[in-house]
Amino acid sequence: MDKGNKPFKRLLLTGAAGNLGRILRVAMRDWADVVRCTDIAPMEAAGPGEEVIEADLADREAVLALARDVDAIVHMGGISVEAPFDDVLQANILGTYNLYSAAQKQGVRRVIYASSNHAIGFYKTTEVIDANAPVRPDSMYGISKCFGEAMSRYYFDRFGIETVCMRIGSAYAAPQNPRMLVTFLSFADLTELVRRSLFALRVDHTIVFGVSDNPSKWWDNTKAAHLGFVARDSSRPFADRFPPEGPIDTSDITRLHHGGPYVLLGPMEPKS
Amino acid sequence: MDKGNKPFKRLLLTGAAGNLGRILRVAMRDWADVVRCTDIAPMEAAGPGEEVIEADLADREAVLALARDVDAIVHMGGISVEAPFDDVLQANILGTYNLYSAAQKQGVRRVIYASSNHAIGFYKTTEVIDANAPVRPDSMYGISKCFGEAMSRYYFDRFGIETVCMRIGSAYAAPQNPRMLVTFLSFADLTELVRRSLFALRVDHTIVFGVSDNPSKWWDNTKAAHLGFVARDSSRPFADRFPPEGPIDTSDITRLHHGGPYVLLGPMEPKS
Amino acid sequence: MDKGNKPFKRLLLTGAAGNLGRILRVAMRDWADVVRCTDIAPMEAAGPGEEVIEADLADREAVLALARDVDAIVHMGGISVEAPFDDVLQANILGTYNLYSAAQKQGVRRVIYASSNHAIGFYKTTEVIDANAPVRPDSMYGISKCFGEAMSRYYFDRFGIETVCMRIGSAYAAPQNPRMLVTFLSFADLTELVRRSLFALRVDHTIVFGVSDNPSKWWDNTKAAHLGFVARDSSRPFADRFPPEGPIDTSDITRLHHGGPYVLLGPMEPKS
Amino acid sequence: MDKGNKPFKRLLLTGAAGNLGRILRVAMRDWADVVRCTDIAPMEAAGPGEEVIEADLADREAVLALARDVDAIVHMGGISVEAPFDDVLQANILGTYNLYSAAQKQGVRRVIYASSNHAIGFYKTTEVIDANAPVRPDSMYGISKCFGEAMSRYYFDRFGIETVCMRIGSAYAAPQNPRMLVTFLSFADLTELVRRSLFALRVDHTIVFGVSDNPSKWWDNTKAAHLGFVARDSSRPFADRFPPEGPIDTSDITRLHHGGPYVLLGPMEPKS
Amino acid sequence: MDKGNKPFKRLLLTGAAGNLGRILRVAMRDWADVVRCTDIAPMEAAGPGEEVIEADLADREAVLALARDVDAIVHMGGISVEAPFDDVLQANILGTYNLYSAAQKQGVRRVIYASSNHAIGFYKTTEVIDANAPVRPDSMYGISKCFGEAMSRYYFDRFGIETVCMRIGSAYAAPQNPRMLVTFLSFADLTELVRRSLFALRVDHTIVFGVSDNPSKWWDNTKAAHLGFVARDSSRPFADRFPPEGPIDTSDITRLHHGGPYVLLGPMEPKS
Amino acid sequence: MDKGNKPFKRLLLTGAAGNLGRILRVAMRDWADVVRCTDIAPMEAAGPGEEVIEADLADREAVLALARDVDAIVHMGGISVEAPFDDVLQANILGTYNLYSAAQKQGVRRVIYASSNHAIGFYKTTEVIDANAPVRPDSMYGISKCFGEAMSRYYFDRFGIETVCMRIGSAYAAPQNPRMLVTFLSFADLTELVRRSLFALRVDHTIVFGVSDNPSKWWDNTKAAHLGFVARDSSRPFADRFPPEGPIDTSDITRLHHGGPYVLLGPMEPKS
Repeated sequence: MDKGNKPFKRLLLTGAAGNLGRILRVAMRDWADVVRCTDIAPMEAAGPGEEVIEADLADREAVLALARDVDAIVHMGGISVEAPFDDVLQANILGTYNLYSAAQKQGVRRVIYASSNHAIGFYKTTEVIDANAPVRPDSMYGISKCFGEAMSRYYFDRFGIETVCMRIGSAYAAPQNPRMLVTFLSFADLTELVRRSLFALRVDHTIVFGVSDNPSKWWDNTKAAHLGFVARDSSRPFADRFPPEGPIDTSDITRLHHGGPYVLLGPMEPKS
Repeated sequence: MDKGNKPFKRLLLTGAAGNLGRILRVAMRDWADVVRCTDIAPMEAAGPGEEVIEADLADREAVLALARDVDAIVHMGGISVEAPFDDVLQANILGTYNLYSAAQKQGVRRVIYASSNHAIGFYKTTEVIDANAPVRPDSMYGISKCFGEAMSRYYFDRFGIETVCMRIGSAYAAPQNPRMLVTFLSFADLTELVRRSLFALRVDHTIVFGVSDNPSKWWDNTKAAHLGFVARDSSRPFADRFPPEGPIDTSDITRLHHGGPYVLLGPMEPKS
Repeated sequence: MDKGNKPFKRLLLTGAAGNLGRILRVAMRDWADVVRCTDIAPMEAAGPGEEVIEADLADREAVLALARDVDAIVHMGGISVEAPFDDVLQANILGTYNLYSAAQKQGVRRVIYASSNHAIGFYKTTEVIDANAPVRPDSMYGISKCFGEAMSRYYFDRFGIETVCMRIGSAYAAPQNPRMLVTFLSFADLTELVRRSLFALRVDHTIVFGVSDNPSKWWDNTKAAHLGFVARDSSRPFADRFPPEGPIDTSDITRLHHGGPYVLLGPMEPKS
Repeated sequence: MDKGNKPFKRLLLTGAAGNLGRILRVAMRDWADVVRCTDIAPMEAAGPGEEVIEADLADREAVLALARDVDAIVHMGGISVEAPFDDVLQANILGTYNLYSAAQKQGVRRVIYASSNHAIGFYKTTEVIDANAPVRPDSMYGISKCFGEAMSRYYFDRFGIETVCMRIGSAYAAPQNPRMLVTFLSFADLTELVRRSLFALRVDHTIVFGVSDNPSKWWDNTKAAHLGFVARDSSRPFADRFPPEGPIDTSDITRLHHGGPYVLLGPMEPKS
Repeated sequence: MDKGNKPFKRLLLTGAAGNLGRILRVAMRDWADVVRCTDIAPMEAAGPGEEVIEADLADREAVLALARDVDAIVHMGGISVEAPFDDVLQANILGTYNLYSAAQKQGVRRVIYASSNHAIGFYKTTEVIDANAPVRPDSMYGISKCFGEAMSRYYFDRFGIETVCMRIGSAYAAPQNPRMLVTFLSFADLTELVRRSLFALRVDHTIVFGVSDNPSKWWDNTKAAHLGFVARDSSRPFADRFPPEGPIDTSDITRLHHGGPYVLLGPMEPKS
Repeated sequence: MDKGNKPFKRLLLTGAAGNLGRILRVAMRDWADVVRCTDIAPMEAAGPGEEVIEADLADREAVLALARDVDAIVHMGGISVEAPFDDVLQANILGTYNLYSAAQKQGVRRVIYASSNHAIGFYKTTEVIDANAPVRPDSMYGISKCFGEAMSRYYFDRFGIETVCMRIGSAYAAPQNPRMLVTFLSFADLTELVRRSLFALRVDHTIVFGVSDNPSKWWDNTKAAHLGFVARDSSRPFADRFPPEGPIDTSDITRLHHGGPYVLLGPMEPKS
């Protein structure tokens, strides 16, 4: 294996044990001589060109070590669903601070940050927004993503560390419900979006909606057109799974906002 | 026939005797157990799953009856060309009020309203506008469509009755003149737009331009992207019918505005 | 009396018997050799430099005669409160058509049109809008004002007849309730606005909010800055009449929208 | 004392021991029968109509108790300068969550939240922004304010708890340096802004810049005009204290951004 | 005289023999130890703290010498009325290039550039624009100002030389015609605008409209609010000199555009 | 050959000896009975339906003769790379004035003007702009294009001569470097853009970015959608020639702006 021929020397992937992390781990092998994988949960053993390190993002020293000798970070780690605030505080708020703090200390130049549509989930499903629309989080989880976006903006303005905030829609093998006909992001499109975000000459601080080329759209990516991300997949082939229903119950607010069911989930009480 | 399997129980189609009404009548059979067709003019007799009722939209009681037990209304009725104001007043202004008044009394939840590009026909052909551009009607007919859009906005804000205002371009089998290379809406695209408007989970009050995917564009549908309407047809195959002409007479104002010949038609004197 | 020295030869004032009409009638004496006053209701007898003609705006021939030899029209006439649609249809919709039709036939060059905040009354009281915001009428009355604005836009685009649409707030001697601390338009400011609208070199089709310089603002008049209207009065001296109340009942939608109580008034049933 | 005559029954003031808290404490006596004052630091003893409770905002139960039987909260508490992230995390992030969580559980209807210009401190001093400009925090402190704004947006969208986010400029007795000629907020104007925010009929979720009527402006408050806040003071009388200097060193980035010296303060290392 | 106490060491004033140049020359004495005055026409002899140098802006070497040891330049020179293109080319196009080229070579940090409303003179008098509106020059003179604005933008982006482009309205002792009631800039306000532009901490590349606080407004200076320029004068006291005229001839395009009579002046033939 | 059947009688092509001129010359044969080709450099001899005239655009009389009996002009002439200002002044500034002056005197109705992305080359590569973004030229060449755009705007507003300003990206057979993956304009797309610009019914003054349908985009052509230009080619097939490089040197400002290497080229000293 000729390590020196790949564009990156070493990339760090957090959340490598998650659904999306496992998919990206495979793709990233082609992009870097070494992919350093980390998660708080157990991961598959390291293959060639891989490092595997179990770590808690809330552990500052551990995160500092993870970022050593790394060209760029794909930050999929943390809690990716609604959770009690205390849990979100540790994993997503403290965790993201630790990550950026480590990136700055270790000289990392770029972060690809898994933000979420839940940062803007309280917009109505009849509103089409772009990256400049003020945040409207729909959950503690969504608020933590607003926090991460603000944190990353700071680290760009202050230290020049670039970030692409991917507001991921619904990254599944296929849409699971009618809402996902709008929010669906295929695994291939997710991978392409990460690839573009890593390889674009320059990204400054960019917010992009991670969504396939679905017929209904709530999100306008014009302001991220410089990334060159062009979705290839669409929810269209899956439309038949969710046939039209006729008049629906408009008092169900989970069907009236971008965030779907999240708008009713939070705030959760801590598990005691 | 298994009525219960269709998404809607009963849909009302006004203007069912018109060119577009006849096309939609066919398509709507698949969407509802019963399609109630109405027009002031004679219509084809009722087939299976159809009701046919001749009525004048200016007749309040008749319209109230039409809206009974209806899930949604596709409102193609009224005068669809320039006409003396008195005629427009009856058919389009009083008629549209009667329709919404009936919808509210009968509990109808959604209206698909045939508005028109003539509501904004006085924009210049070098201006590209979206749904938020202030109205600039080009005729008494166009003014009546502005009225209908305002009326429908009220019924949504006041009673939650949703409306999709389709500002239909030129719905013909093929473009009839150079202007229609820009404004062409194929019958298939019209049908798809009505289908999307009926079946979208939620539309609130949406203004959408009814236009195929033609090369020249005056209308930007970003604000209605949530409908999921994607035009499949284009005027491109018809471009050869209207070859370039070289320099034209720019003093002909009918060629300088979105509304085309309408900008010179009105106001007509009443037929006496 | 030296008729020839006044800027206008003859001005038409409709709605001259109304509260605002009576105030404007006095002011207009200085602006024109002849002020032609009209209303459907009885008016004070004609003084020097005045003509007084009782007429129904729904009477086309009568309106045509009113507009003869007139330089400009101050159109305060019609119904100025919520009313059954049939009444609005006659006085405000047919009436406004008759007025513009007459203006065009008689060569009148400018109309000052009493539109209303009720054309946009369904905006929330936490939203600040300008003249380009899409209409959101709060009543049949408000819809008729949207109609009048669209009609006047047409007559400008088609025939060059200029209009200033004054979206009058609450023109009273003093604010009558807490809402009017925001919407108050003093009589002096109303008069100044009409004066500016008549005397501005050129107004094309301008929408301006008729409101004094009150501390709370819902309406931004930047787009009408060319008129040179500068409000001199304010609701501030009246603030003590409506002391703060502490927490209020936010389920009362009449307190949540620009239109105030109008949002619940309509549609009224016809008086039988 | 006639408790029943004041507009509010009980208001909670956090940060009551701070510079601004002490000023507001005095003013708030007129607005509520009882002002409940709290701080982590010692406060002046309770006077008539006052309750004084020492508490740590990071203590969930204590905060829950503070919010009991409270009509509205003026939330000046937390760290108000740049500090190590761990401190900000406790006081401002966990503290603000605790506050909103308590407000929701106790049925509090409105919060006046002391946000900061440091939420947008990385805009250039030649840029004029309004409330919709995306956040650009200049410090850990600024990021915590972005967090608080997102949190408060959530609590409005989810539970209808209203918030006015005051992005306070430089609230001092007088400007302390040339930058404060732009960012100065007099104590009287601060008090008036809090008063308006408490007493406005409805505020939904409003972001307002807390700044006096200074000659140079970086912040446009049009979108909060509905509050009715009109600054009465200005930095103009203090201009002579900071005479023009002629050419300056433009490589000093603390002079190039809204946030001034904050853009270089963070992130601080924890005090060990 | 204590030279060292003034904020600037040496300022260059071009066009010092012109109407506005003579006024600024006086004011600038207080701002700099030395005011270097230049013009192609004869000027008053140098007083204390002044240098007077006759020079042609089209003479590259002469301009290079003028910029030596200069802190900032107030560039009022060149042709300030419509003229044949060849003349404009020399004085305003070549002259402005020479000036910026010299500024860059001599290390000058800031230029206050006399641009003109004629750079945007073809906007309609019913349109209110801000600094971001695309240029619409009304004359060869106006085009040369667009050129100068583009040139100055380049020198800021490329070399960091700051410029305030003052789009001067009508700088006279008093308005000379009805148009100037809108465009009037008093000499005191001009002086204040130059002062602010010189002394602002940082201006980057700012476009500001030079206009007093007149009742009618075509120009919105929000985007230059950071300069802190607040006009103190108004055309209001002069309004009586141009009483309202009643209906005017709208076919006179000089009354329909910001630029007034300029819209018909050009292009002039060269004087032969 | 049947001359009378082509849409244009005579078209003028300037810059006919250049790379793009030679390509357009071939295409234009189908559009006009006569294509008049001109350049300061030697051109291929005239074929059927062609006239070939060597001329200097700085020669007023020569240009006046070129424009005689011409329907429209495709203006590719002048200097198309960075050059000393004196050269740009003659060829592009004086030359463009001569061209429009001649067009006006000879009654030419439309000009297709080769503007350049270098008129806006100082925008950052992470910014997506449209035709209304203020100019930010990156060179003397770019400034001359801003001048030409302003000049053409004047000739439209003043005389109704229409212009399409094509801000050409990188018109090559294939992209030559990574930047051109974003800015590439294929020869076929250039030809189609010129064709659309000539044949559109009406163009007024339109600014359009000349760029193929490349994956990364810096330029949004919505405001020119009325032209009907749809790019058919893309840089995508060439992407492999410039594989991702991993982290780059962000201090290289030629990689950070739309204009690429141009941002460092100027201003050049005159060749002596």
